[in-house]
Amino acid sequence: MKLATLRDGSFEGRLTLVSRDQTRAVDAATIAPDLLTALRRWAQVQAPLRALAAALEDGRADGAFNFDPARCGPPLPHAPQWLDGSAFLNHGRLMEKAFNSPPIPHFDTVPVMYQGASDDFLGPLDDVALPDEAQGIDFEGEFGVIVDEVPMGCAAADALQRIRLLVQINDWSLRALGPHEMKTGFGFLQAKPSTAFAPLAVTPDELGPAWADGRVGLRLQVLHNGQRVGEPNGAEMNFDFGTLVAHAARTRRLSAGTIVGSGTVSNAARSAGSACLAERRVIEMIDEGAARTPFMRFGDRVRMQALAPDGGPGPFGVIDQRVVKAPA
Amino acid sequence: MKLATLRDGSFEGRLTLVSRDQTRAVDAATIAPDLLTALRRWAQVQAPLRALAAALEDGRADGAFNFDPARCGPPLPHAPQWLDGSAFLNHGRLMEKAFNSPPIPHFDTVPVMYQGASDDFLGPLDDVALPDEAQGIDFEGEFGVIVDEVPMGCAAADALQRIRLLVQINDWSLRALGPHEMKTGFGFLQAKPSTAFAPLAVTPDELGPAWADGRVGLRLQVLHNGQRVGEPNGAEMNFDFGTLVAHAARTRRLSAGTIVGSGTVSNAARSAGSACLAERRVIEMIDEGAARTPFMRFGDRVRMQALAPDGGPGPFGVIDQRVVKAPA
Repeated sequence: MKLATLRDGSFEGRLTLVSRDQTRAVDAATIAPDLLTALRRWAQVQAPLRALAAALEDGRADGAFNFDPARCGPPLPHAPQWLDGSAFLNHGRLMEKAFNSPPIPHFDTVPVMYQGASDDFLGPLDDVALPDEAQGIDFEGEFGVIVDEVPMGCAAADALQRIRLLVQINDWSLRALGPHEMKTGFGFLQAKPSTAFAPLAVTPDELGPAWADGRVGLRLQVLHNGQRVGEPNGAEMNFDFGTLVAHAARTRRLSAGTIVGSGTVSNAARSAGSACLAERRVIEMIDEGAARTPFMRFGDRVRMQALAPDGGPGPFGVIDQRVVKAPA
Repeated sequence: MKLATLRDGSFEGRLTLVSRDQTRAVDAATIAPDLLTALRRWAQVQAPLRALAAALEDGRADGAFNFDPARCGPPLPHAPQWLDGSAFLNHGRLMEKAFNSPPIPHFDTVPVMYQGASDDFLGPLDDVALPDEAQGIDFEGEFGVIVDEVPMGCAAADALQRIRLLVQINDWSLRALGPHEMKTGFGFLQAKPSTAFAPLAVTPDELGPAWADGRVGLRLQVLHNGQRVGEPNGAEMNFDFGTLVAHAARTRRLSAGTIVGSGTVSNAARSAGSACLAERRVIEMIDEGAARTPFMRFGDRVRMQALAPDGGPGPFGVIDQRVVKAPA
């Protein structure tokens, strides 16, 4: 089933179910007022939500209406935690070159992960207000999972079973600020402004065989000002989501609604292109001696969509955002 | 005024005002049900809260009762963000030696700050369940501030005016995991389990002249199993809280209720002792060639209290916690 959060002026928005073809929707607030509440009561609400989703699919749902992604906020406007890995080693290796930073120890065997801000997420079509083009404005196309409660010390196989929903993410990044923050050892903070999400959070079964081995096996198409950047496939993730969730929970418990991201989707095959500009720039440096592609400018747009194998609409819907200058 | 959160089985607990001498309390839930709600409506609730606090002080408050810190959770059980600086350079320099890590660039002029988990805070007397003594269990005594909304790009002087409450913090740390996480550049995650707070969040005026220059000018007494570790003074903070809040808000807005910490309180004078074991251990290494003091063991306790200049109870109350083994 596909869940969305419609903006209605409330703090958490309104829980909504969306049909598989993304044309119809139905209010689900009688089952749970918002998605965070639903996740906290998942054992109780899953069956009624699935029943309502089936009714919507069959044209039997009372009060169904046309789905309009423009009315959507992020599926979870606020999450208990937002933890982002870097599980595509190809991306990490390229970023080491881009930032001229030393190799990360045990990078092949121990996931890396930073803690991001989870109180001010952006919706799929929201403008992104940032202070300064000189900070190296970049997008990062990612997949992510939303989990139920996860106990401290949970094993990866068990953690995989705690995944309730899959999401598609644009992890906005400021590349001029990242290298300094990495050198401090304290991690990304200023380099990671508010993160954006595609409108639909989906149960893993919604992806069919594309959800396999704890990975989203779909290509993520990324366009910058309408021009192709790439469409790398999520199946190439070196650590699966169960491993990432277990990493996050090693010394803490995770609250229901915690989001864990994959890091930038990236494939070893150059033909796949990239899901961020920094990666393209470092490939240009390697291949051509210098980066040609600039970072984003105010007014630029980025569009991201996971591609359905059957050519239909991407299962998570579309992120399409414009960068604007923040008011001084 | 002094605010506390009484545990009543609800998600955010119950907002309570506490008398200056910490003997009496009164329920404030008719003004705002919980502290997070109060912070989101601060302009509206501040005056009625102050009126009720004055009535409590004068013995005129209906329904006043004896204050029992054992009933308290952390002042904010869940915060929008928890951002912790390292604003005492003496601590940072010692930790570089402890971790044998390279000098942090621009450490004297640009604050460092990590993002912590803000969804699972501990109360002042809560046991701390951790998986493994071998992870180097340590406490860190800190001061912190809770802010109102802070706009992106806020200047330090303006940020200082957005501080609503002051708090006392125990930033639990796992020292065996920290150096690796610093080397990844992604920052602390597993090395920082749930953070604990003293029972009372206080308005800055409550400290009188001890709140000056954006710093808490009080000694923070730290005892490990009843033995003195130190009582360093918060006045020696190299970056004031306005600067720390502005650092956090450079590329993001902060939601009301965001907590910004000072990092471990630390003084250059050796006579002040330390507010964490790692610092004492590195001083032993420097002075005696080897660390003698072990990290904490299951069953150990730590007690922290800011010392009032007049010898009365510490303005934030007492943190007194025991480390226990987490269930497997």
